[in-house]
Amino acid sequence: MALAIELAKKGHYTTSPNPRVGCVLVNNNQIIGQGFHAKAGLAHAEVNALAEAKKHYPELIQGATAYVTLEPCSHTGRTPPCAQKLIDAKVARVVSAMVDPNPKVSGRGLKMLSDQGIVAQSGLLAAEASLLNVGFIKRMTVKVPYVRCKLAASLDGKTAMQSGESKWITANEAREDVQRLRAQSCAVIAGADSVLFDNAKMNLRWSQLGYLAKTYPENKLRQPLRVIIDSQHRLTPSLELFKQESPILIVQTFAETHLENQQQWPHFVEHIQVKATYDNKVCLRELLAVLAKREINEVLIESGAKLAGAFIEQDLVDELILYQAGKLIGGDGKNLVEMPSIQSLSQAKQLKINDVRMLGRDIKITAKFERE
Amino acid sequence: MALAIELAKKGHYTTSPNPRVGCVLVNNNQIIGQGFHAKAGLAHAEVNALAEAKKHYPELIQGATAYVTLEPCSHTGRTPPCAQKLIDAKVARVVSAMVDPNPKVSGRGLKMLSDQGIVAQSGLLAAEASLLNVGFIKRMTVKVPYVRCKLAASLDGKTAMQSGESKWITANEAREDVQRLRAQSCAVIAGADSVLFDNAKMNLRWSQLGYLAKTYPENKLRQPLRVIIDSQHRLTPSLELFKQESPILIVQTFAETHLENQQQWPHFVEHIQVKATYDNKVCLRELLAVLAKREINEVLIESGAKLAGAFIEQDLVDELILYQAGKLIGGDGKNLVEMPSIQSLSQAKQLKINDVRMLGRDIKITAKFERE
Repeated sequence: MALAIELAKKGHYTTSPNPRVGCVLVNNNQIIGQGFHAKAGLAHAEVNALAEAKKHYPELIQGATAYVTLEPCSHTGRTPPCAQKLIDAKVARVVSAMVDPNPKVSGRGLKMLSDQGIVAQSGLLAAEASLLNVGFIKRMTVKVPYVRCKLAASLDGKTAMQSGESKWITANEAREDVQRLRAQSCAVIAGADSVLFDNAKMNLRWSQLGYLAKTYPENKLRQPLRVIIDSQHRLTPSLELFKQESPILIVQTFAETHLENQQQWPHFVEHIQVKATYDNKVCLRELLAVLAKREINEVLIESGAKLAGAFIEQDLVDELILYQAGKLIGGDGKNLVEMPSIQSLSQAKQLKINDVRMLGRDIKITAKFERE
Repeated sequence: MALAIELAKKGHYTTSPNPRVGCVLVNNNQIIGQGFHAKAGLAHAEVNALAEAKKHYPELIQGATAYVTLEPCSHTGRTPPCAQKLIDAKVARVVSAMVDPNPKVSGRGLKMLSDQGIVAQSGLLAAEASLLNVGFIKRMTVKVPYVRCKLAASLDGKTAMQSGESKWITANEAREDVQRLRAQSCAVIAGADSVLFDNAKMNLRWSQLGYLAKTYPENKLRQPLRVIIDSQHRLTPSLELFKQESPILIVQTFAETHLENQQQWPHFVEHIQVKATYDNKVCLRELLAVLAKREINEVLIESGAKLAGAFIEQDLVDELILYQAGKLIGGDGKNLVEMPSIQSLSQAKQLKINDVRMLGRDIKITAKFERE
């Protein structure tokens, strides 16, 4: 199963909206086939493993055990159900790390197998396997994507001078890492103000992916959906953002008049309206639900202090990715996050730091928000 | 020499104002004696190594090589000169990692040895050996102590709420680490405001030393000199600070009237006056020079955002020790350092991050300030 998990990771940047899945076929202590799911529409992990086994050890498939990181699917989606493929191949036993997180189909694949006399078990290395698909699992269970928030600051938590002077507070290695974060995200979210300030493209730049560019040929990684919150209708089609030809979602509130029709927008730009909060801002919780409906598993927030703070204040962020540059800016710099609702230490957001490492000359901290 | 450096580290918490020194005696590839300097007034490393060799291998001392992390002393201080001891013992060769950093005596010990026909060399593992004595070396060469600044904050660089609510932002392991920082420091510096705010004792608490308490019996570590900057004469003898019976230096400026005589101060409290800056504050550069004259090698600044910021703004700090708790407080929290002179990113203080690690659930960052 550990090998199956490693195989699943090979699809880390490419499977969405599908989950990352790996499969290993074993007969009599011998590995006879390995496979992983690479991309929605292409073969699932089980099918790939069976195909490999068929090529090299066709006589050993019957009676084999399939180790698969997720319960084999029971329904026909983009491809036929994997449970049926395993039944047809006459494997003797299927061990899955975890059941399908979708409550509507959870357990059905295993039942389909056991109904045909195949030993079907689940739960081996479940915790490890669930880390493969934090976004897919969250979308299936709570109907919102897994949300990461990327921030960069000096050691004293400042992102810029009050003047706004800020670009490249961290060094090249950290910026490459951000590109890899974008590569694994189905969508990135930013506010209109930060897009306008930097005239940012918010796209995935292959040349800045570092080691990842060695694994994937140019243009083999999908561009994340760019979600820009623009309550004040400040975006214009002439921005750099619109020069990258890949989907953009401009988010406004129902409370707003429809100015977007007055402009000529490129074909890959879509405007949506989301309900407003009492203070006339886009309801972020609602926005995430909308993104989940669009099969967005993992979201990366790349925004300024106010929007990031709003997401965090409302407990909508799962994970913080914080890059720290070896600088001290002092009290006159801009704050990392603005969270006006926090007025006592007991209200401070608690995080569990999962990883700290050097990235070039900067620090990268990965931490999970702890909910009460 | 690597072994000699390890030996020297055994004196890490106890040698000051003397340097940490280790010595290994070798004859014919056999270690015949080891020693380190433990405490000012007690035997030096060379003497301890010779004593051990005399006990176990008296016949092998003559013709031996002495590896010592610092040039053997040539003068009679609290103890007689080590160079003479090595001459008397008839060693054949002395290899020191570095010469004495005191420009007045540098090279004299080695010359004393070579004048007697002993092969005297220097420079082996010099960089590693110099790290043993950053404070002693800095005091000897530039006449100020090595200055560490300890700060603790949330991940977004906030130390407290504006209300001041702040105590214990970090967990127990980080607080124990601060006690160990105090244990290795000759002096701690704080401002009157932070002492008053917490009614802090600023002392070394043996029960909170963690693993260090296992190495040193209670009361075997000296209390650091507590240096409190009190320009506004706000300290009173009834504070907790004065309940710990160990030296306190209360620092005021020449510009101030002498209020201290109106109070009854304990015998271990000394008032000093340091020249004032144009804005009537204690000249911090001058204060450090005063401390160096008092044989203070290593100083730990444990203060609020303003005093720490003032030291950092003036480029008086060598090393930052930053503890970060897994919290986000938001823009309404108190800043880690106030440095009003920094108004552009190019003025931001640059640091080289030397170490990042988890300490319990907090992060500890050790970084050196980079000077232009």
